[in-house]
Amino acid sequence: MTAVDSARRIWTDCILVGGEQGSVPLRDAAIVTAEGRIQWLGPAAQLPTALGQGAARHSLGGRWLTPGFIDCHTHLLFGGQRAAEHAMRARGASYEDIAARGGGILSTVRATRAASDAQLLRAARVRLRALQAEGVTGVEIKSGYGLSLPAEERLLRLARQLGADSGLDIHATFLGAHAVPPEYAGRADAYIDDLIREWLPHLAAAGLIDSVDVYCESLAFDVAQSLRLLRAATALGLPVRMHAEQRSNIGASQLAASCGALSCDHLEYTQAADIEALARAGTVAVLLPVAWHVLRDTQRPPVDALRTAGVPLAVATDCNPGTAPGESLLLALHLAVRDFGLRSDELLASVTWHAARALGWQARRGNLAVGAQADFAVWNIDSLDELGYWVGHNPCAGTVVRGQPDARLAQEINA
Amino acid sequence: MTAVDSARRIWTDCILVGGEQGSVPLRDAAIVTAEGRIQWLGPAAQLPTALGQGAARHSLGGRWLTPGFIDCHTHLLFGGQRAAEHAMRARGASYEDIAARGGGILSTVRATRAASDAQLLRAARVRLRALQAEGVTGVEIKSGYGLSLPAEERLLRLARQLGADSGLDIHATFLGAHAVPPEYAGRADAYIDDLIREWLPHLAAAGLIDSVDVYCESLAFDVAQSLRLLRAATALGLPVRMHAEQRSNIGASQLAASCGALSCDHLEYTQAADIEALARAGTVAVLLPVAWHVLRDTQRPPVDALRTAGVPLAVATDCNPGTAPGESLLLALHLAVRDFGLRSDELLASVTWHAARALGWQARRGNLAVGAQADFAVWNIDSLDELGYWVGHNPCAGTVVRGQPDARLAQEINA
Repeated sequence: MTAVDSARRIWTDCILVGGEQGSVPLRDAAIVTAEGRIQWLGPAAQLPTALGQGAARHSLGGRWLTPGFIDCHTHLLFGGQRAAEHAMRARGASYEDIAARGGGILSTVRATRAASDAQLLRAARVRLRALQAEGVTGVEIKSGYGLSLPAEERLLRLARQLGADSGLDIHATFLGAHAVPPEYAGRADAYIDDLIREWLPHLAAAGLIDSVDVYCESLAFDVAQSLRLLRAATALGLPVRMHAEQRSNIGASQLAASCGALSCDHLEYTQAADIEALARAGTVAVLLPVAWHVLRDTQRPPVDALRTAGVPLAVATDCNPGTAPGESLLLALHLAVRDFGLRSDELLASVTWHAARALGWQARRGNLAVGAQADFAVWNIDSLDELGYWVGHNPCAGTVVRGQPDARLAQEINA
Repeated sequence: MTAVDSARRIWTDCILVGGEQGSVPLRDAAIVTAEGRIQWLGPAAQLPTALGQGAARHSLGGRWLTPGFIDCHTHLLFGGQRAAEHAMRARGASYEDIAARGGGILSTVRATRAASDAQLLRAARVRLRALQAEGVTGVEIKSGYGLSLPAEERLLRLARQLGADSGLDIHATFLGAHAVPPEYAGRADAYIDDLIREWLPHLAAAGLIDSVDVYCESLAFDVAQSLRLLRAATALGLPVRMHAEQRSNIGASQLAASCGALSCDHLEYTQAADIEALARAGTVAVLLPVAWHVLRDTQRPPVDALRTAGVPLAVATDCNPGTAPGESLLLALHLAVRDFGLRSDELLASVTWHAARALGWQARRGNLAVGAQADFAVWNIDSLDELGYWVGHNPCAGTVVRGQPDARLAQEINA
């Protein structure tokens, strides 16, 4: 008798779909995981006998198995909430009215600076647990509610700590260029100077930055400021991304594409030339339908044109207290179908294969392939249509993270 | 020493709001429960000493406490799902296209008839658990996916069983008049005849009906048919309610008001004279924003006019596989603010005090008053604005059902 190798597991009686294999499900499948990676996958009938020996076997009871979902755009480390602003918006208040009453990003900067590490971690863990309950195993977290060097460093360190605590993969994005901090009011160029001269090198040297983002918009940083920052990031070897064309078009996504950005996010006002640039650069378009919904936007991102141009389409929650106060990636998918016209066969890639690429993770995550990290979501569904169908219902049975089932899945399958 | 009376509990360090007391929170409050009912409530400093002695004390840590939420309009006992229809709708298919391909209510009737009791109960329990996780302690469940006497009787019995199993309060509504069953195709009048002559008396005598509903709409049952059915129900002493004016106005809510209906539900096409009739009859208007959202409706219920006329406004999930596939009452509240213009101070009553009235429950439920059932929801919130703010986030810490904390709340407060 070979002893059971606790590090090796065979997941059987499942329907595999996702990653390189596209959206065609493989029924009666099996998948072998060892040391946190996929060792083999294919039709169960073709499972090599040698692989089967001595491994722990888990029947998934006919459920669907996809790559673990990846939420590739969040601001989930924040203090406080902005419900009063939301109620004002429902009564017709404009962005300007809200800002004039002390609302907007800077109100969350105040609340975040005032919160203790423990308070921020507690709230963020609730959000990460809710994401994981819907199949998410990888999450991007942006800084940008600190806006001083120590406060930004704290947020990036807390993001690292959340990764270590939760077991989930966390991609930490430096978004110092989220808004001009009160200390630099009226001096946006000086702020960008300091980011380039001091903050970026310090935070990068500390290993706290996985990518650099900038809010390039008429009400935030202009194209020249954004370009200076992204060039400095690139010079430090850091990947870049951009909040682009949510409210207007000032040339953000063409700039991002020229810098080889991993992703451009929002894109409501993106035009034909921008789309060509994104396609040429291989930049992922990250759609954020929850923010669109909450802001009552009417301008939709040009999904048909992006699709036709071959730009990879990702969907994310945008979790943040102002414009997307929640953490349901399934709700984002529902809205991506309803409001942006995504097709069912595009949904899965948008939160796995393409979302991984938006974070530079495509070599190891968001995929079902030998050698990929063994991060899965397991689903009580009958078709991929269900990913955009339910609204306020979670058909996820649990996740596997680096080959280990979470507590809920373990209970469900008696693992 | 007095022994601890396990049936008597004092909940302290909480902010009470809801029911008769409206939307003004009472801070530093205490509430005493015994034998499943509220025995006392008020400022903690005024708690009578005698009541405090020998009772179990639970600090709620400054959290908000409201009446348990009531979801007063659901069709949550159903088999299958209709995700393919939803994907068709996203690609532009009309109601008629979908029906022509075998979709719509009758496809769920087929799936529900084909499902075993165990399958239906398993799916319904998932939905009830999700509702309770958001603070819901009372739920209306309609039949209407059986559409034969034995199949309707089965659904109503399963609704009773769900009440017994879950510990939640279930109001079972007979909705035989949901659609004309295939066995009566083209013979709607004959179907209503049989409902009146045989089905209603049989099911009422078995004690399975708490109220009778009818889908009064040009594509379902007309005013004459609906009136006959509701009169028969009333003659049997059964309360009535109505699906009214979702797609058109054929006089449904005036008819319902003339029968003293507990509620009229949907009301997108309701007009001034209808609103006067509802106000005079004391009928509750149940708004169903999730269905409105899923169907991409543009005609909004006349909320301002209903409010001005003093019609009580309730909000419910409408949980059903065709037009509201989910079970998040908080999402319904979010949409009620965004799409229907409800105010934050109206949200709480819409899912407690007014929802209770829609089910004839106002004497004992949906209220914080001495003698009321001790059903509470406990919240990690700072204001009532938060009830309509979060979208895909659940700030509920747990529920108390007839004086007992659920497992999640017990863990949260170490009870």
